[in-house]
Amino acid sequence: MAPPRRIVTFTTDFGLEDGYVGQMKGAALSICADLQLIDITHHVPAHDVLAGALHLKAAYAAFPPRTVHVAVVDPGVGTARRGVVVRTERYVFVAPDNGLLSLVLQDEPAGAAHLLEARHLRRPTVSATFEGRDVFAPAAAWVARGIEVERFGPEAGDLVRLDLPAFHAEAGRPVSVRALLVDRFGNVTLNVPRRAVPRGDGSAALPRIRVQAPRETIDELHRTYGEADPGRPFLLFNSADFLEIAVREGRACDRLGLRAGDEVVVTVG
Amino acid sequence: MAPPRRIVTFTTDFGLEDGYVGQMKGAALSICADLQLIDITHHVPAHDVLAGALHLKAAYAAFPPRTVHVAVVDPGVGTARRGVVVRTERYVFVAPDNGLLSLVLQDEPAGAAHLLEARHLRRPTVSATFEGRDVFAPAAAWVARGIEVERFGPEAGDLVRLDLPAFHAEAGRPVSVRALLVDRFGNVTLNVPRRAVPRGDGSAALPRIRVQAPRETIDELHRTYGEADPGRPFLLFNSADFLEIAVREGRACDRLGLRAGDEVVVTVG
Amino acid sequence: MAPPRRIVTFTTDFGLEDGYVGQMKGAALSICADLQLIDITHHVPAHDVLAGALHLKAAYAAFPPRTVHVAVVDPGVGTARRGVVVRTERYVFVAPDNGLLSLVLQDEPAGAAHLLEARHLRRPTVSATFEGRDVFAPAAAWVARGIEVERFGPEAGDLVRLDLPAFHAEAGRPVSVRALLVDRFGNVTLNVPRRAVPRGDGSAALPRIRVQAPRETIDELHRTYGEADPGRPFLLFNSADFLEIAVREGRACDRLGLRAGDEVVVTVG
Repeated sequence: MAPPRRIVTFTTDFGLEDGYVGQMKGAALSICADLQLIDITHHVPAHDVLAGALHLKAAYAAFPPRTVHVAVVDPGVGTARRGVVVRTERYVFVAPDNGLLSLVLQDEPAGAAHLLEARHLRRPTVSATFEGRDVFAPAAAWVARGIEVERFGPEAGDLVRLDLPAFHAEAGRPVSVRALLVDRFGNVTLNVPRRAVPRGDGSAALPRIRVQAPRETIDELHRTYGEADPGRPFLLFNSADFLEIAVREGRACDRLGLRAGDEVVVTVG
Repeated sequence: MAPPRRIVTFTTDFGLEDGYVGQMKGAALSICADLQLIDITHHVPAHDVLAGALHLKAAYAAFPPRTVHVAVVDPGVGTARRGVVVRTERYVFVAPDNGLLSLVLQDEPAGAAHLLEARHLRRPTVSATFEGRDVFAPAAAWVARGIEVERFGPEAGDLVRLDLPAFHAEAGRPVSVRALLVDRFGNVTLNVPRRAVPRGDGSAALPRIRVQAPRETIDELHRTYGEADPGRPFLLFNSADFLEIAVREGRACDRLGLRAGDEVVVTVG
Repeated sequence: MAPPRRIVTFTTDFGLEDGYVGQMKGAALSICADLQLIDITHHVPAHDVLAGALHLKAAYAAFPPRTVHVAVVDPGVGTARRGVVVRTERYVFVAPDNGLLSLVLQDEPAGAAHLLEARHLRRPTVSATFEGRDVFAPAAAWVARGIEVERFGPEAGDLVRLDLPAFHAEAGRPVSVRALLVDRFGNVTLNVPRRAVPRGDGSAALPRIRVQAPRETIDELHRTYGEADPGRPFLLFNSADFLEIAVREGRACDRLGLRAGDEVVVTVG
């Protein structure tokens, strides 16, 4: 029986207005005709590497092993920044080396990380280079065809990490924390990773957390949206494993006057 | 020869900004690696079950038999509302039991409707549940793999219906009718089902219908957009089989000052 | 081994809000169950044939030979305008005959162009016709199944061309030129085709070009975005092979106060 088609996912800031995403997919299909191509999102705010990293972290593990995840949010396109292909235990990731993979690689340590340097594994171009189409998508398609990551170039060594301030929970001490992302439903992701909070894994009693936002203080932590009362802001650890402020059947961002980049005060325990 | 891949469609209010749709697809592909995944729309207004039901009704019959249609517009997520899998003569539908399927099931009567209760047919989760990813998409993928709907749980019994006011046409009597939906082109869907209008099926002479909107009265009914004069509002039965106000090469909603939820007066005959 | 699935791409102004695109895909899959369906874009501004033609031109050549490209931007739907299927050396195109293919066919001359007239190659409809779903998508699927373009109807003869003013470069003479398109990143496409500029192909030294926009004059021409300094407007030939004004890490349209349809003055040499 034929093996199932390889899955390639895309996370970019290209939007869907201009056909850039279609061009990437065309380039991939030119190399490997039978791929399962899946969009994670193309609406990462333009050049916002952190938002891209968060979206990728929230989504990558929903896919079966051997999926190839391509991410392109690339304010440094055309500069000396490197392109990389990274193999982890379960997946392969293809991206510019600008921190876009750094949240994912906290969970899935890199088994091998190589530079995207091999010319014959790029799309030949006659004019302006569009690296999503000419470098990253072709690399993913070659991986799907069975090319080992080692073939793309020399070892990448240390990868760029996002300078996300670490969150250190200390019982009773208020910490200033940044709102990282606001989603379509108005939920606000805070820079409080689940792993940085004692009992954040939800294996036992939930931890006590208090968030002081400009207009309101929230101290209800729930496991799911359904446990909360409609209309009242509450906290939960979201699918990206960060602390989130949400309002069931409402928009937390509007209720609390919060936007990505704003600061709130978080106290654990 | 291998049978063709099963088609799974998605109709949700998740938007495309946040990767939720990608996560649903990843969950489905984790169960059945070789699906044809098609988006109907993810831009149903947040929590608008009626709009979701209309989009699904307009689109489902364009797909070949055996397609599995997943719809998730779910203001009650996490409450006691039920999840269901419904087999009709031609299709299988997976959705929360909140009325989202009720317009479709008027056309395609349910042959079997079962609750999504079987734990082993869900995605195991360690943290917050996202039912689109963890319940509905996996159910669709299991159906595509050949699991019978009876295996998901007990019979669902009566399904929730939308409380859309019935439209009763009585010759010459004006009836107040709600605008249900405005589409990208500014066309306005009214709560007048084709079946409720004598000769609405277009098999013979068209019926006489008059719609009094705030700014204008419209009484031209056409079979297609192309029959109308550019710039003048007219009526037709649209692909969802509801009466629609349209303006060729224009936006009926702007011309008439109509938004979803507004009332107009309809007189038939 | 089974041949790879045929690729069908879509370029439309249908948007993603309403399920029209899903319906087209359902119609195609009803005819040919195993297609690779790829969106180029559905966000062509409503009824803007020129914008559609530019998006198609920018994207089509990224796809492997034998791809079937469907484009539907169709202000004349329902009028006497014709539908066509066009075979070129590498691809097949399906579209209304309103100029949507005219930029592509400058590069890829038509080998055969036939009218979409054969009733048995359309979707049977009982009510209002939606030609994207009922004519164009089915035609693409029949082509993918191996139906020759000659089978769809008589030869189309001359196809409609866009009345894009030709650009004639004459050394040192200023020419008024229209801004054709502004993309998501704020880049502005001008009506200056690469082929109309001496040495525009970039094979040797770059030509000298000066663009006088309302707020600024730009005379730096680069081969890639990466060669430019951040924040300063520059010129390049983009992936659609037209002259473009861009600002690295910025939005040229905002910086220069330019919108699609505006005029600038271009001087070559």
